Amino acid sequence: MLPRPGPAEMPGARRAAGVRRPHPQPPEEPPAREEQDLLLAAAYVSDAQYNRNIPFETSPQAIRLYCFYNHWTMQAATYFFICIDLSLALFEEPALFPLPFLATSIVEVLCLTAFLGRLVHFAKVTPQMVFWKDTKNICIMLTIVLTLIDLIVYGSLEAVNIRSVRWSRALRPVFLINFPESRQIRRAFRSIRNTLPDILYVFLLFLFSVLMFSLMALKLFGDRGLKTVEGSPYFTNILDIAFELYVLVTTANSPDVMMPAYDFNGWYSLYFITYIIINTYVFLSVFLAVVYNNYRKHLKNEIRKLAYLKRHKMIEAFNLLKVQVGTEFVVKEAQWRRLAKVVAPDISSSHLELLLRVSDEGQKGHVDKMNFLRLADLLNIQVVTINIKRHPLEAWMPRVYQSSASLLVQRMVRHRVFVWVYDVIILVNAIFIALDERNPFISYAEWLFLSLYIIEILLKLYTYEPRSYFGRRQFWNWFDVLIIIAALVATVANTTIQSARKYSSQQILDIVLILRILRLLRVIVSIERFRVIVTTLINIGPAMLTFGGLVLVVYYVFAIIGMEAFHSKVQFFDPNFTAPDALVCGNPALKDSAFARNRYCKNNFNDLASAFILLMELTVVNHFVLLAGGFALVTHQAAKLYFVGFHIVVVILIVNIFIAFILEAFFVAYSLEKSEVETAIEKKIQELGVGIQEEAVQDGKLVDNMDTRDSGFSEDDGDNKRKALKGLYFRIASKKYRTVDALLQQMFESEIAPEDEGPPLDEILNFSPSDICPKNPSFENSA
Amino acid sequence: MLPRPGPAEMPGARRAAGVRRPHPQPPEEPPAREEQDLLLAAAYVSDAQYNRNIPFETSPQAIRLYCFYNHWTMQAATYFFICIDLSLALFEEPALFPLPFLATSIVEVLCLTAFLGRLVHFAKVTPQMVFWKDTKNICIMLTIVLTLIDLIVYGSLEAVNIRSVRWSRALRPVFLINFPESRQIRRAFRSIRNTLPDILYVFLLFLFSVLMFSLMALKLFGDRGLKTVEGSPYFTNILDIAFELYVLVTTANSPDVMMPAYDFNGWYSLYFITYIIINTYVFLSVFLAVVYNNYRKHLKNEIRKLAYLKRHKMIEAFNLLKVQVGTEFVVKEAQWRRLAKVVAPDISSSHLELLLRVSDEGQKGHVDKMNFLRLADLLNIQVVTINIKRHPLEAWMPRVYQSSASLLVQRMVRHRVFVWVYDVIILVNAIFIALDERNPFISYAEWLFLSLYIIEILLKLYTYEPRSYFGRRQFWNWFDVLIIIAALVATVANTTIQSARKYSSQQILDIVLILRILRLLRVIVSIERFRVIVTTLINIGPAMLTFGGLVLVVYYVFAIIGMEAFHSKVQFFDPNFTAPDALVCGNPALKDSAFARNRYCKNNFNDLASAFILLMELTVVNHFVLLAGGFALVTHQAAKLYFVGFHIVVVILIVNIFIAFILEAFFVAYSLEKSEVETAIEKKIQELGVGIQEEAVQDGKLVDNMDTRDSGFSEDDGDNKRKALKGLYFRIASKKYRTVDALLQQMFESEIAPEDEGPPLDEILNFSPSDICPKNPSFENSA
Repeated sequence: MLPRPGPAEMPGARRAAGVRRPHPQPPEEPPAREEQDLLLAAAYVSDAQYNRNIPFETSPQAIRLYCFYNHWTMQAATYFFICIDLSLALFEEPALFPLPFLATSIVEVLCLTAFLGRLVHFAKVTPQMVFWKDTKNICIMLTIVLTLIDLIVYGSLEAVNIRSVRWSRALRPVFLINFPESRQIRRAFRSIRNTLPDILYVFLLFLFSVLMFSLMALKLFGDRGLKTVEGSPYFTNILDIAFELYVLVTTANSPDVMMPAYDFNGWYSLYFITYIIINTYVFLSVFLAVVYNNYRKHLKNEIRKLAYLKRHKMIEAFNLLKVQVGTEFVVKEAQWRRLAKVVAPDISSSHLELLLRVSDEGQKGHVDKMNFLRLADLLNIQVVTINIKRHPLEAWMPRVYQSSASLLVQRMVRHRVFVWVYDVIILVNAIFIALDERNPFISYAEWLFLSLYIIEILLKLYTYEPRSYFGRRQFWNWFDVLIIIAALVATVANTTIQSARKYSSQQILDIVLILRILRLLRVIVSIERFRVIVTTLINIGPAMLTFGGLVLVVYYVFAIIGMEAFHSKVQFFDPNFTAPDALVCGNPALKDSAFARNRYCKNNFNDLASAFILLMELTVVNHFVLLAGGFALVTHQAAKLYFVGFHIVVVILIVNIFIAFILEAFFVAYSLEKSEVETAIEKKIQELGVGIQEEAVQDGKLVDNMDTRDSGFSEDDGDNKRKALKGLYFRIASKKYRTVDALLQQMFESEIAPEDEGPPLDEILNFSPSDICPKNPSFENSA
Repeated sequence: MLPRPGPAEMPGARRAAGVRRPHPQPPEEPPAREEQDLLLAAAYVSDAQYNRNIPFETSPQAIRLYCFYNHWTMQAATYFFICIDLSLALFEEPALFPLPFLATSIVEVLCLTAFLGRLVHFAKVTPQMVFWKDTKNICIMLTIVLTLIDLIVYGSLEAVNIRSVRWSRALRPVFLINFPESRQIRRAFRSIRNTLPDILYVFLLFLFSVLMFSLMALKLFGDRGLKTVEGSPYFTNILDIAFELYVLVTTANSPDVMMPAYDFNGWYSLYFITYIIINTYVFLSVFLAVVYNNYRKHLKNEIRKLAYLKRHKMIEAFNLLKVQVGTEFVVKEAQWRRLAKVVAPDISSSHLELLLRVSDEGQKGHVDKMNFLRLADLLNIQVVTINIKRHPLEAWMPRVYQSSASLLVQRMVRHRVFVWVYDVIILVNAIFIALDERNPFISYAEWLFLSLYIIEILLKLYTYEPRSYFGRRQFWNWFDVLIIIAALVATVANTTIQSARKYSSQQILDIVLILRILRLLRVIVSIERFRVIVTTLINIGPAMLTFGGLVLVVYYVFAIIGMEAFHSKVQFFDPNFTAPDALVCGNPALKDSAFARNRYCKNNFNDLASAFILLMELTVVNHFVLLAGGFALVTHQAAKLYFVGFHIVVVILIVNIFIAFILEAFFVAYSLEKSEVETAIEKKIQELGVGIQEEAVQDGKLVDNMDTRDSGFSEDDGDNKRKALKGLYFRIASKKYRTVDALLQQMFESEIAPEDEGPPLDEILNFSPSDICPKNPSFENSA
């Protein structure tokens, strides 16, 4: 819930705000000055709205530069150059698509220039002191310099034909992490860093346990003369044992590692079962518990920081615009409107009117401080204005549309059975797809199904108002129609290609096949419970991209190292190529190895794409020992350290954080369903009778002529909608689409008293997770 | 925290209690009647103390029968017979140790008689109505009858040499689940049952996703004519594909399942990567989230129920014993003492005195209602009385013990460096163990290390008071000494055996080896952080046994089914036996199969032990497809359903509940460290100055002559202890040893207001998780 306005402001709060205020602004200020203040306030509000926390200079020029800095084109350009820079590894030796060194180095220098430009821009915006204190900026500069040095050294060695290592490539993800836009990825990294001390002790104890068991295994099995299936000696070397047992934690070599001992004596299975219970089940769960606990703790700390910083910025903005009315400082309505227009230029006038009504509860012509502070939140809530109109067909030929036959069709389409019938059709369709499609009967059936789907959509468009059916937030309707169109295109394309008998383009045919099958996803739409789960997953989507970024960074660094270390040690030959070389992946060291026997030759580090796929396989963990063993054979046993290191970083840390994140996201989603976060806007919309007529808004006056309806806007209440002709409805754009972060922040903000201005700025920036508890006990618990 | 006594009772609460009271008891009641009431009250308090919830008749005879029913010998006997009954499967066909059918059936009938006896005892204790309404009792009776029928049918068929199926064996775990003692296991099952509806939809969506991907795979790869490494066609049959993709979720066939497609075209890896991200990472995390969320919800509901039932029983007990003093109903001190003595016969008089002090705050000679209700909790808190005495050596020869040389030794032993030196010695010892022990120098070193350890213990006994060093709760000291004694015995035994040159007993030698290595565990003792983690794990231990029970039940049922279905399909031959039969595990159907190639012959269902080990391997999941495939080859493809079913039940449900349990346990442990649950007893002990002198207690008067010390009793404060000669100290037996359940219950109880008598009994028994939130919002959040 948003903070309610108190009956009167706290005098202390006002004084404190007044002290901090940089420009005292008497009402008789000249308009130019006022314009500047408005711009500055808008910058503050915008920062609060998007949770940006960059200190910037307050001179008018600096503010304009700052707005430009935050403009989406600049951000997009930065990301574009980061992508280019990262993807250079595809074209450099060892390359997927080789390009000469000169070409890639020119592109790299170009990217570096762009990064430098962005950094200079940032330096102009932010105060000098802050800029030079920020490790992010230092990091970027250092990386640019190091990369240039590496380029020059490598280039000159290349010129005299000496091959050296392009080590600076592993530094490229620094750019992705350190630009201010990547706050989420940085936060994930911080979360990992903060977890390290806690996890370290568990990890050491875990290692200790593995070593203890290794010693036992050496003593128990070392002298038995047992042999593995491959005929090599079993458990005779303490290092091999430790590696095998570490791998057993990942379960990747179970039960093979146990079989020789188990075959020898059944009781030895007890040793392995004990090991698995202690190290695989208990320790890995403890890792998850520690990571999850820390993740929660630090997430809450970050959110608290953000919430206070936001409040801080809104107070700054308020102090710039406030005028005294009676005993209170307030912001005049006209000023408030101008501010909102500057912050959100695309806002519709009716939406703005609604927000003003929410902020200026008593219609006094000004907005008080408590309500002003909510502006950033109000702007963040997406309000959909729905223009209820009659069905175009009804307008065009009312008699026909309202005839009993037409009404019967409409009732039929709205009936539940209609949905069920189509679900059955989809399932039958799925069976047909599974069957052999060379049967002509089945390929005709394909057309039948497609026409049935198209008829369904046409019927729905006939029954429901097309513009609301394709409303901006009607995700599932869009999904439905797009899938059908894609399937239609796919089937047509398939038939064309088949009839033309030229199977040349493999890729197109594959995409066509997949699109036809994706059509089956429509079943999800019609089952409510499925839709809820999918919606939750889609919700988590954007935040999952953060993990995508995190994984990308770690994969990239490991891939570059792997490419330098294992490049072209393993070769892939076409499966039909049966030369002896192909059987050992082009490396005699792999003769008789499990790596070659399982035909893993394509799992290599010969280019970036292969390396990423190999790392993905390592993340999945299975056959970890075969893959690591193969690369150890072609280089040195120490290569296993690379693979174990990757496992620790990715599986023990990152995958656990990912799981912690999904757990937390689901819990927040669950607890939300229970405790309805009713925003002030929703209340207002309901108070005003849901619908606000367009004309009334233009007159500046709201007419209450609709029934209060708090049900969502879904297909099923089309009936009610049709009765309220030509009304303008507001709706909070589905609560479900809010992100976990936003939810947590809202939960925390509801804990801060409306009068609380939070601690001073320095203190906010140095919050540590441990001092949350005494101050906000219930937030600590509820999130 | 325990509820504080309010300044005065709520009159409403007292009246309500009065209404419910069955026997109004004027003070001039005859002693016999009083005795009966005391017994009944003691039964209530004891039930509250141990959270037993069996309704019992209140006649004096029934109460005595009830006490006998709850006696530990009766419970131990029940568990003994359950163990016997379950382990019968070891001796029945297919048997590990075959016994004739007659012998096992006689034992089984004996067990059934014992169960019936226990049930009859229970029927005598509990009211008839309650007994016949309880499904647990019906279940047991039904199982007894079914088992008898099965025994008779099987026996008669056996007599005429027809082999049939002993199906009733799969019902045996019913006894383990349904006796009232197994409340924890039943709760775990309930938790699973309650989770099912929620998880079902996620599971269906997951299956839908797997089927979608299977269809895609069929279309994408089916016509390519690809071959697997084994040369069989790749992805041509939709059922095979679905099975392979299901297995891919378990990661057990990664990356093999992808290699043919990946070798054919690199882009196809995208299909598998998408599949793994969606189904392995996202869906399995969602399963965990759903299971965990439900687990928490239902756990809280159960705990709430228990807390209210406990309060209810304590009120009943109070109503039996209360007398009116002034305007209040209270329990007289003498009556209270007698009650405590009946409930806890072993309680020491000083301990009882302490509890009375806590209950009778103002020393008014009686205990009021609020304080009386805490009695069960007070008795549950283990208070250790520590008798501080001088070191015996000091008493025996004070001059020598206090001499400067002796003091130097003592200071040395107490110094931190002493611990470090011994840690280094242990590490060196570990290296020596890892080295070849046939080297005579190393086997001498073994004796050197042992003597160093013994010297360490002797020095510690010299420095610290032996009786407090071996105090009842000094877990780590005991651990230390036992490990050393075991190692000593082990080394001596080893040398004896070696010198006698008779390596006959393999098992003894193995145990000796393991004991020698376990000695290294002492490192854990000296690193504080390790000790904390291990203590937490030990804490969780008892509750983990619940999962042991759960897993046992599921394994047993699956093992019996597996033994009936796959018995002697796969044979194990000695590894040295190289007949062609041995290579295909005695079954020609396994020729050229991966199962035989990996020598998995010993993974079979030919006896209970083998079946359990195989199920353990399936729980670990790796090579799931090889194992399932092998058994499908020797029987029918439908056998894979058995393995998939096992995976769903054990890995998706039980392992996730296990992880949820560990997460919750760790979070409770973490939150406890922060928010010190200070009990009333602790406060009292501190108030009284920690030490209460023996004589003072006997005089009924407490002397406050000690410094308040709230530090724990560990080796390091031996100095202080020695100064306080011959004092009797109380200490709350390490908070860390409390179970998660107890902690949660305490957290919940602190939320119930002391005057709250809770809802009526019927309502308590029908609590559902959804009505927790409005009543106890902060408990809901904090746990």
